[in-house]
Amino acid sequence: MNFHARQGKLQHHLVSSRFDALLISHLPNIRYLCGFTGSAGLLLVEDAGSVFFTDVRYDTQAREEVRAAKVVIARKSPIEAVADFLGKKRRRSKGWSLGIESEHFAVAEKSRLNKLRPSSVALKDAPAIVERARMVKDEDEIQRIRAAVELGAKLFDRAIDVMRPGVREVEVAAEMELTARRGGAEEMSFPTIIASGPRSALPHGRASEKAITPGSFVVCDFGVILSGYCSDQTRTVWVGGVSKDARPAYEAVREAQQAAVAAVRPGITVGEVDSAARKVLQKAGLGRHFTHSTGHGVGLEIHEIPRVAQGQPEVLQPGMIITIEPGVYFPGKWGIRIEDMVVVTDGGCEVLTPTSKEFLAV
Amino acid sequence: MNFHARQGKLQHHLVSSRFDALLISHLPNIRYLCGFTGSAGLLLVEDAGSVFFTDVRYDTQAREEVRAAKVVIARKSPIEAVADFLGKKRRRSKGWSLGIESEHFAVAEKSRLNKLRPSSVALKDAPAIVERARMVKDEDEIQRIRAAVELGAKLFDRAIDVMRPGVREVEVAAEMELTARRGGAEEMSFPTIIASGPRSALPHGRASEKAITPGSFVVCDFGVILSGYCSDQTRTVWVGGVSKDARPAYEAVREAQQAAVAAVRPGITVGEVDSAARKVLQKAGLGRHFTHSTGHGVGLEIHEIPRVAQGQPEVLQPGMIITIEPGVYFPGKWGIRIEDMVVVTDGGCEVLTPTSKEFLAV
Repeated sequence: MNFHARQGKLQHHLVSSRFDALLISHLPNIRYLCGFTGSAGLLLVEDAGSVFFTDVRYDTQAREEVRAAKVVIARKSPIEAVADFLGKKRRRSKGWSLGIESEHFAVAEKSRLNKLRPSSVALKDAPAIVERARMVKDEDEIQRIRAAVELGAKLFDRAIDVMRPGVREVEVAAEMELTARRGGAEEMSFPTIIASGPRSALPHGRASEKAITPGSFVVCDFGVILSGYCSDQTRTVWVGGVSKDARPAYEAVREAQQAAVAAVRPGITVGEVDSAARKVLQKAGLGRHFTHSTGHGVGLEIHEIPRVAQGQPEVLQPGMIITIEPGVYFPGKWGIRIEDMVVVTDGGCEVLTPTSKEFLAV
Repeated sequence: MNFHARQGKLQHHLVSSRFDALLISHLPNIRYLCGFTGSAGLLLVEDAGSVFFTDVRYDTQAREEVRAAKVVIARKSPIEAVADFLGKKRRRSKGWSLGIESEHFAVAEKSRLNKLRPSSVALKDAPAIVERARMVKDEDEIQRIRAAVELGAKLFDRAIDVMRPGVREVEVAAEMELTARRGGAEEMSFPTIIASGPRSALPHGRASEKAITPGSFVVCDFGVILSGYCSDQTRTVWVGGVSKDARPAYEAVREAQQAAVAAVRPGITVGEVDSAARKVLQKAGLGRHFTHSTGHGVGLEIHEIPRVAQGQPEVLQPGMIITIEPGVYFPGKWGIRIEDMVVVTDGGCEVLTPTSKEFLAV
């Protein structure tokens, strides 16, 4: 990972902005910029270089992991250490301004820093600068995400092995998660969704104690974290004898998903990608059952910008990685969702998820 | 779960405070007050009753789960729906004040709400009122935590079955996590720590691809989430032939841990509990190797207040549940930590964690 290059871009951004320095508090942004993987720390980025502040629990780990930044182990809290550091350097001219990550910094944390800061330093709310940089993945990141997606796909193969009427949803999840661990995953990228029967109509039906019953869909939505990067995939499987209305609804979702994938290319907006899926489902009379957006960015976090949703103006660029995941839901009956991850290429996109999307009944 | 009683306490608190209503945004607080387990929502609590706002993804789930509050499905975002609601009710007298959870509400989110709110409503920063209420667990909660701790303990039995030189840390974690799932756990309460060899000196050494080698400690720190509540336990095991200095260090940590457990009773401060452990390790010449605090509250979240740390003034009350987890760390060599969960009783405390703390070599 080229942390110097990433920080360099941010420093370049500082020059043209109203901030003299940025205080990075969002942990995935810290990891992106300097490699630290722990759960407590603050990264101060300024033209003169970067300083990472953490507490004693992370002394050894920070010294091992952090690149492209000086490491300071706080005696009290990282935020007090930041204030001390700013005070010592006598930061400088009047109106020296420190940008905070306003989408992540808590109101109370800002108040505390406001009390501790030297009077010459002004706190200003910064927008999501690092998240915007993270939207476009570099080669290292694409390689890691590719590996995560490939491992993730193996979990579905395992799910199909064990899925049958009578097996509890959590047992299917357990087998998938064991496959993830054996493949080197650090953890799951979110609580595994195995939603069977009427639960498949819940877009976020985490695996429960419920046994799988025949005559319905099972929505499987799952992902792993491998070397820090997330995978995200959904497949929907029919269990038992296939009912008359199941297949047409499935094929409509599949067609919508493929239409959205086909729309992905540099220069078009994510809103247009959403429309491509939505139009197919509207034509099939299922528009009002597609109750969520078409997708989202994925990387160090499972949900990143851009949101691939109706009317969203973000324009796709090569190197962006997003999910394409339309679904339809019939409360009390069943639901269907199909999700791949795709990387935007110069000429269109590449589907990273290798799993078949053919209708499958077990 | 008696959600009416929990909200009743909060409404009672409102009467004596400077807030006319509270906007609850921290998800564990929302779950505590109305039972919603999803990942997006806002709960408005006022004297006249509570209203829960979420988005379309959680339509069915919110109607099934939410108790003691009206449910509103936002057409746009929950925060816009809150602003609309406040506007419609023409909230009322000048200076009607809405408290926001300042420890959790992001600076940018507050700005957005400030722009959307009716001019008669003032936003004010509220302290951690709900977290303070959550410190003392009710009977339902103690019962659920007891079940989580008992399941958690089974994971360590499984770890001991599979732990031997040559086995990778992640393989041990995988077997533990499968045990968790088979026991009905929703997920792990944090990424499982299996830290062997010199990695045991990292207080937060997540399970890695490293194979376990003889002649060192392995720190196992793990927990499950069962019915929403977390367990948290640490045991440290020696692998291979026992070196001369291992046993005395282990016994010092064990003695420190027991001294802190013995100190827990209503009326004493958490700082005194921390001191009880710290004194034993100082006497053994290991004080400077005990680099973190003695423990923390546990419940719906893995880390809750109170922080059981040096000088902390919080006074223990019956029904509080905390961890007691002193440890010593020798960077580059090894580390030891022993952790139980205890519930404060009328006369002292009960250790919930059933696992032996005897020195164990495998």
